[in-house]
Amino acid sequence: MRIIGIDPGLTRCGVGIVDGSVGRPPVLVAVGVVRTPAGLDVARRLLELETGLAAWFEEHTPDAVAIEQVFSQHNLSSVMDTAQAAGVAALSGARRGLPVTFHTPSEVKAAVTGSGSADKAQVALMVTRILRLSAPPKPADAADALAVAVCHAWRGGATNRYAAAVAAARGSR
Amino acid sequence: MRIIGIDPGLTRCGVGIVDGSVGRPPVLVAVGVVRTPAGLDVARRLLELETGLAAWFEEHTPDAVAIEQVFSQHNLSSVMDTAQAAGVAALSGARRGLPVTFHTPSEVKAAVTGSGSADKAQVALMVTRILRLSAPPKPADAADALAVAVCHAWRGGATNRYAAAVAAARGSR
Repeated sequence: MRIIGIDPGLTRCGVGIVDGSVGRPPVLVAVGVVRTPAGLDVARRLLELETGLAAWFEEHTPDAVAIEQVFSQHNLSSVMDTAQAAGVAALSGARRGLPVTFHTPSEVKAAVTGSGSADKAQVALMVTRILRLSAPPKPADAADALAVAVCHAWRGGATNRYAAAVAAARGSR
Repeated sequence: MRIIGIDPGLTRCGVGIVDGSVGRPPVLVAVGVVRTPAGLDVARRLLELETGLAAWFEEHTPDAVAIEQVFSQHNLSSVMDTAQAAGVAALSGARRGLPVTFHTPSEVKAAVTGSGSADKAQVALMVTRILRLSAPPKPADAADALAVAVCHAWRGGATNRYAAAVAAARGSR
């Protein structure tokens, strides 16, 4: 099953794609970020994000979408931008008929490091080991997106069973 | 200039459309809500919202989009849903090449009632008077959406001048 993990954001939206399922080691497919220009207004940045994500969906045809849930309460304005970006990411998956699941930051950290309070460096290190990469993915948003995808592959559950059925029906992977 | 005001939400997204500009009394074009089923997951609800909003954009061809900015800090989970809905609303405008402006709740309240701390009933009452309606629009989300549209018509500014130019180029209204 191919999973696209998304760490939502307007400045840098992390995208990490892995092939994986419960009980099997996930394999890296692709990783990167979608950037949108800070000079544009929020609505136009959301449109650029949608266009950028579309290219990833079209090139890699994922079976499931995993999005890191927005939680931080530090800076309400940037949280709202991030939540709006998450909405566009979720919409992008739903429009393609894919299952879309949100994972909390602590679920993601716990899945890849064993601790729900791991820091970004620990998450990047574990993602590097799990996917047998030669170096940690950069920027951090890209590593986080891979962590969300790995988390989704390993957590399994009803959503994954549905996604697996979709993948099987497509005769893929 | 035709303005679509949007009070974002997943359960009920208010939509209010007015014709208006700075210094002239705004006129009601249409008002209502887009509802999405609580039984669907968030991604699917965002997709239904996008589809529902598209019908309003297509029927009424607004020149500008005004969205109530999400601010409340009471219930973080529902705030995130609302912010994601706002993202889909902004995207819907941007995709159509329209200017999209966010107005804070206190800007909206101040514009229609003169007080940034007016309650919902006062806002609904003033919207009813300003637009010369026979009764307050129901539900409250619909009245709030009209208030955002009226606020946008009256606040003017650079965004409105751009929208007015778009409207003029279209040869409309």
